[in-house]
Amino acid sequence: MNNRFMSMKDLKFTYQTKMVDLEKENSTALSDPDHPSSDKATGMVLDAAFDFAKKELHPIFEEMDRNPPTLSDGKIKVHPGIRKILKILGNDGWISAIFPEKWGGENMPPSLLHCINFIFASANYSASVYSGLTIGAARLILSFGSKTLQNIYLPSMLAGKWQGTMALTEPEAGSSLGDLTTQAVPVSDNAYKIFGEKIFISAGDHDGVENVIHLMLARIKGAPAGIKGISLFIVPKFRPDAQGNLVDNDVTITQMFHKLGYRGAPIAGIRLGEKDNCMGYLVGQEHKGLFYMFQMMNGARLEVGMGATAIATAAYHAALDHCRTRKQGRKMTDKKDAPQIPIIQHTDVKRMLLFQRAVSEGALCLILQCGIWEDTLLQTPDRKDLHLLLELLTPIAKSYPSEAGIHSTSLSLQCFGGYGYCEDYPVEQHFRDMRIHAIHEGTTGIQGLDLLGRKVTMENGQAMILLKQKISKTIEDANQSPRLEGMACDLAAAVTLLEKTTMDLGVIAAEQGVPAYLADATLYLEMFGTIVIAWQWLSMALAASKKLEREAVKKKDTLFYEGKIQVATYFFSYELPKTKSLSITLGRKLKATLAMPESCFTN
Amino acid sequence: MNNRFMSMKDLKFTYQTKMVDLEKENSTALSDPDHPSSDKATGMVLDAAFDFAKKELHPIFEEMDRNPPTLSDGKIKVHPGIRKILKILGNDGWISAIFPEKWGGENMPPSLLHCINFIFASANYSASVYSGLTIGAARLILSFGSKTLQNIYLPSMLAGKWQGTMALTEPEAGSSLGDLTTQAVPVSDNAYKIFGEKIFISAGDHDGVENVIHLMLARIKGAPAGIKGISLFIVPKFRPDAQGNLVDNDVTITQMFHKLGYRGAPIAGIRLGEKDNCMGYLVGQEHKGLFYMFQMMNGARLEVGMGATAIATAAYHAALDHCRTRKQGRKMTDKKDAPQIPIIQHTDVKRMLLFQRAVSEGALCLILQCGIWEDTLLQTPDRKDLHLLLELLTPIAKSYPSEAGIHSTSLSLQCFGGYGYCEDYPVEQHFRDMRIHAIHEGTTGIQGLDLLGRKVTMENGQAMILLKQKISKTIEDANQSPRLEGMACDLAAAVTLLEKTTMDLGVIAAEQGVPAYLADATLYLEMFGTIVIAWQWLSMALAASKKLEREAVKKKDTLFYEGKIQVATYFFSYELPKTKSLSITLGRKLKATLAMPESCFTN
Repeated sequence: MNNRFMSMKDLKFTYQTKMVDLEKENSTALSDPDHPSSDKATGMVLDAAFDFAKKELHPIFEEMDRNPPTLSDGKIKVHPGIRKILKILGNDGWISAIFPEKWGGENMPPSLLHCINFIFASANYSASVYSGLTIGAARLILSFGSKTLQNIYLPSMLAGKWQGTMALTEPEAGSSLGDLTTQAVPVSDNAYKIFGEKIFISAGDHDGVENVIHLMLARIKGAPAGIKGISLFIVPKFRPDAQGNLVDNDVTITQMFHKLGYRGAPIAGIRLGEKDNCMGYLVGQEHKGLFYMFQMMNGARLEVGMGATAIATAAYHAALDHCRTRKQGRKMTDKKDAPQIPIIQHTDVKRMLLFQRAVSEGALCLILQCGIWEDTLLQTPDRKDLHLLLELLTPIAKSYPSEAGIHSTSLSLQCFGGYGYCEDYPVEQHFRDMRIHAIHEGTTGIQGLDLLGRKVTMENGQAMILLKQKISKTIEDANQSPRLEGMACDLAAAVTLLEKTTMDLGVIAAEQGVPAYLADATLYLEMFGTIVIAWQWLSMALAASKKLEREAVKKKDTLFYEGKIQVATYFFSYELPKTKSLSITLGRKLKATLAMPESCFTN
Repeated sequence: MNNRFMSMKDLKFTYQTKMVDLEKENSTALSDPDHPSSDKATGMVLDAAFDFAKKELHPIFEEMDRNPPTLSDGKIKVHPGIRKILKILGNDGWISAIFPEKWGGENMPPSLLHCINFIFASANYSASVYSGLTIGAARLILSFGSKTLQNIYLPSMLAGKWQGTMALTEPEAGSSLGDLTTQAVPVSDNAYKIFGEKIFISAGDHDGVENVIHLMLARIKGAPAGIKGISLFIVPKFRPDAQGNLVDNDVTITQMFHKLGYRGAPIAGIRLGEKDNCMGYLVGQEHKGLFYMFQMMNGARLEVGMGATAIATAAYHAALDHCRTRKQGRKMTDKKDAPQIPIIQHTDVKRMLLFQRAVSEGALCLILQCGIWEDTLLQTPDRKDLHLLLELLTPIAKSYPSEAGIHSTSLSLQCFGGYGYCEDYPVEQHFRDMRIHAIHEGTTGIQGLDLLGRKVTMENGQAMILLKQKISKTIEDANQSPRLEGMACDLAAAVTLLEKTTMDLGVIAAEQGVPAYLADATLYLEMFGTIVIAWQWLSMALAASKKLEREAVKKKDTLFYEGKIQVATYFFSYELPKTKSLSITLGRKLKATLAMPESCFTN
């Protein structure tokens, strides 16, 4: 197995690029424009995360896949490494890091947590989700739970002793959450008896922890139908009784799903209240469950995007390593008896590697961009502009790496030829691990509807205007550099095309109604996403080109910065043009998908 | 598990469409233009194949994946069903069908064999390859082997008792076959001692047969370097001695590959002549091995394309079945408390299903088109036009379903949501099974180089001219129908764009040389393939629209024909426009992939 799963140099470059942009925007006085103030401390945290990932997560990447969790006697057993990992993550403060000092945390900015997630997930995606889920659940409790609930649940969760989960999906309520039927019957104060069934719960139960805390959506008896009658509950596997002892809470594991990939993490189904003895504790107010959940949804979606990005990154590094060492064939200009060359020298192989880099590094850049806006919003919650931008770009940050990542890991596999199809190399696992991301936390179809149906139109299209301003600023800067002028010009044209396409769709909405307007939302998401990633690449090329203009760049760094500009050029030559075809299809007034009668699928 | 894995109605419609076209072209007098003469007999053969596939192949589709072959004590054990299947295929004449009567065959036309392969592979791809490999190996022996070799090997192979294989790849010679090093040392007459190592041999050894016959490429001692020094040998696992007894032939199994998918078939590595006792028998003349192999290569590549097509088809039918029964969400125009609807009613789900149908049925149509040209060539070998067309379209028939099939099975999986990611449903297996096809029998990259580097330019571009004539004929016919006029017009424009792009590349070749000309060969293959499949869809829409013009069409048939036209419309709206973007990238004079220095991949 190759040992490289990500590039710290690239991560630091990308994070720094976004930080410098931010500080410039905020006109923060910088002593050295290349080194924002927090640079050193940040670097140390990232290095420590990398160290941990390399020592504890990556070595069991394949092992966890080959020995997936087992369910027997109603108990789920996971790889023994998980207990150790959660213990370290708890003890060393990784789980509590973003929480306030009161909870043992350090108020770590969200963007830095994204970087850490990236490192962990590229080392071992399955191993990285356990603590990520606990953090998400604990955040919900901190944001909306009572002090009592916080005191009972947070300490053990942040210590890595208790697992947190999100229990949303039911057999008949997946994408359509409003149809969920799990019921909560009031008993006293905020305590309810819970009855129902949940499925697809990541880390829904396992023996790496002492307790499992489900953050669960359910309907209080008599609540209105649909999404307005949903409340949020804490439903623990073991509940603390009056004496503080943990007693069984009547949560039964009904099944464990055997999956294509992402096999190191157990996905469980549970039944609640079989013996009429399952207690749930209301978080926040009645009927506000979905609202609370949506508060966290953006974060969860960025995390999924980062998971996809990390897997694509790890697969790319495996492929790069192989293409540098595997010899096969010759250059067209070589003599026939010349020795075989490393396949990285074949143009089509370079094309495949460039695609993988373009996708993984471009997506990383976008998610860190979003993370830095999250940072700012925490400090200045009244920055409505950033709130709108985040809302607009979250469906893209979630779906672009998830979709392009399928193709990217597929090309990583292709770089290995027949070997890539075999279990001896890690890429077939990356290919399998990747495929979940277009599904969980809202399918790509749902993201498309969210973008075109909600985000583009919200506040009279204000978010679109803000995004255009941001992109225009980058274009303006890039126009100063002769090397980037062409790309700047292409990006401006693509933005104009996007605006035109959006207006075309507006006409279709007016003439034919909403179903026709939304028919191609997934294609619109793809077009929009491609342009946003092009923008990120231009910003990286800009940063790299500024570095190159300075004199004291080391040879190795020169190659790195030069490489960044080359990958940007690749993206603008091979990916951005796809927006033209998409705009043609999106602009068609007759929607072939809408027109197809279901009955005609007969055959 | 759903029980539908393909549509006999669709297969018969497609095959008939191509047959009618052929008979019209040949101006054969037809009593009924809808029912070519051989229709009835053909239908019976297809029905029998379907029956066998349903009874013997499909029931063990998942079982063979979950219980893959095992290697122990140097022996490979496969699912017990394989022995039974090969026995029936041998006894009932399926393996010998395309061979002459002398060998117990029926001279079955290649196109019909493609149909049978399609049925078998959609039922259970892994189970279908065993006999397919034997047929391929036996064809080589029949075409180029001596009568003695034919008499020794063919009877048991065609009876399904002996497995045939193609043993080409070596650890250091995959895509670069000219670098193979397996050696043959002359002993007597046509007998040689063989020394070397081969890997990635499909069905390279197993206990479902009594013997394994490797058709192997090796280099006779002292032969010239490169591809010109390669000869073809029969290397059996057990060789018949002078008394006709089978004796061990010193072929050792070194490994069995554990694969992402396609798990029901063992892929083996073998070592030859470890004990200095491995005999090989020269097939045909010395040093002509690669030439012989290439004679069979087109057939093998069409078979891979058909395998991919069949898998995409089976996945589509599983998805269609699910989308019709799974209820989730509501129409945008429904009331909020309306009952949930089958997800096939959601436009984005229809889009995913349409893509799957467009790819699988379009690819099927193209391969049957190629098959019918093969039929004609067998009868009239001087039809140089068909030979050129086959050469031109084979890389497309191989790679289009292999590449589009990855996305197609991915969308089949997506139609199932979270369930699709679980082993309870067949689609995750289809997704895994599919991924081999872009690799084996020449990677997609190799197909691109073949198309642009060899096929487009051969005989001064004669094949391109012939193809254009064929497409123009379809466009002309379609122009007679008001419903198809728009598509005819779009296809004509796409062909013009392809010609322009090809000329642009010619200029690039003249100005910058061959490496720049071939840099984007894979993209050219994609563009070319999309146009060829559009052509096939127009021909199907034309046939369907002619059926609809007749009065006595049953309601169910009306929906089927109407569906065909709708899927064609979808392809022209959503897929054909992609050629525009591809032409932009292909036309760029600066090739970003060629320009990228390997050193810049540093990070």
